[in-house]
Amino acid sequence: MNFQLTIVKVGGKVIEEPDALKALLKDFSLIAGYKVLIHGGGRTATELAEKLGVESKMVNGRRITDEETLKIATMVYAGLVNKTIVAQLQALRVDAIGLTGADMNLILSLKRPVTDIDYGFVGDIKDVNYKVLSELLNQSYTPVLAPLTHDGEGNLLNTNADTIAAETARALAYNFNVRLIYCFEKKGVLMDENDENSVIQNLNLELYQQYKEEGIIKGGMIPKLDNAFRALASGVREIIITSAAEMNTGKGTYIQ
Amino acid sequence: MNFQLTIVKVGGKVIEEPDALKALLKDFSLIAGYKVLIHGGGRTATELAEKLGVESKMVNGRRITDEETLKIATMVYAGLVNKTIVAQLQALRVDAIGLTGADMNLILSLKRPVTDIDYGFVGDIKDVNYKVLSELLNQSYTPVLAPLTHDGEGNLLNTNADTIAAETARALAYNFNVRLIYCFEKKGVLMDENDENSVIQNLNLELYQQYKEEGIIKGGMIPKLDNAFRALASGVREIIITSAAEMNTGKGTYIQ
Repeated sequence: MNFQLTIVKVGGKVIEEPDALKALLKDFSLIAGYKVLIHGGGRTATELAEKLGVESKMVNGRRITDEETLKIATMVYAGLVNKTIVAQLQALRVDAIGLTGADMNLILSLKRPVTDIDYGFVGDIKDVNYKVLSELLNQSYTPVLAPLTHDGEGNLLNTNADTIAAETARALAYNFNVRLIYCFEKKGVLMDENDENSVIQNLNLELYQQYKEEGIIKGGMIPKLDNAFRALASGVREIIITSAAEMNTGKGTYIQ
Repeated sequence: MNFQLTIVKVGGKVIEEPDALKALLKDFSLIAGYKVLIHGGGRTATELAEKLGVESKMVNGRRITDEETLKIATMVYAGLVNKTIVAQLQALRVDAIGLTGADMNLILSLKRPVTDIDYGFVGDIKDVNYKVLSELLNQSYTPVLAPLTHDGEGNLLNTNADTIAAETARALAYNFNVRLIYCFEKKGVLMDENDENSVIQNLNLELYQQYKEEGIIKGGMIPKLDNAFRALASGVREIIITSAAEMNTGKGTYIQ
């Protein structure tokens, strides 16, 4: 039987507020078995860019990454956020190791081709080095992944953290029983975005497509769920979309 | 017989100038056997602090690290500089892994006690986890260490990169034949600071003490050499102080 592996993706406000982050990491430390944490950077990068007078450009909810923006992302994601998390996990006796996709050649990606939009230094994942990640897990380390990958030619590339979570889950599904938990600001996928308590408890592909057509599920939720269903199709056992505060409660939306 | 391990410490301008860094990493990639790279951050951190309006305080050539300065150091050292190096080494087929002392609990330090000076978030090294470093090396990874450690209680601490190099060399001297190369802006330890070609080829402890008394060796060279002689006394085989451009030429000052 394969070992249990929990992959948690966190982003948004919880990363930015020291008390919320502390509570989150405490909860994360209590998860039994092997685990991986994947984080975004949230507004810290945007705020730093503003302070430095670097304009943040967004198209369809995706950040356009020019050279200066990439530097800021590298400083905030791989530096400040990643190492703050690692140091705090160490204090919770979790032997964390903070990594980008460049470290140990962990995640190789391809710079997104320019079509009608030039996303700049953004990478689409080509390959997750599941062998190296499995070795780290088997040596009892807890990888903490920042949302940066590399192209193997010396360039770091900004990569969506939800996608890294899904692709890492897919890649590790060969060696582990993977549970993937997406933590975000809501309590789950909502039937009514104005009603925090309208959480959809179970969501399958058929229902998802219906809700999309009906306009119930829309916006930023769509790439998140596309990632989730893709991971499910690749053998990830359980996918939960929930709030950071309810990570360990079993509440949220179950993708099945 | 123990395997050969080369530990290279680089800092200053070479880190800041893309072409110089590229040349340095190319040279580093050509070193045979196991290797570790330890880097500072140089003026990039100071420049970022200036842009953000955070005052950089120095006392006796040491940076005073308040909370904001620590954040900047974490962004620049562990983020931008470390991951830029890792991505470029990967392109040179060196399987680099960028780490701080918090990652894998690699370097534990103690926040420097306040005496007449409060250095702030600065750590003095207590313990280098030579077992974990040796395992990484034996798995053919090349650790790239940023000058940050942790106190095991959740705090990152700014730590002098020269000291990290010396302490890492000392700790690994149990398992490897260690050669430690300090790269800096001069071609070696100079007899006359105004004459680039007055490199002292061999320096032993007796001569060092004599040159210190005579005022030939002074300033920032003293902590660097104190570190070097301490490493030598702990079994490090060879210590060379040279310029980044001459890392692989065998030129420079040999500490013996």
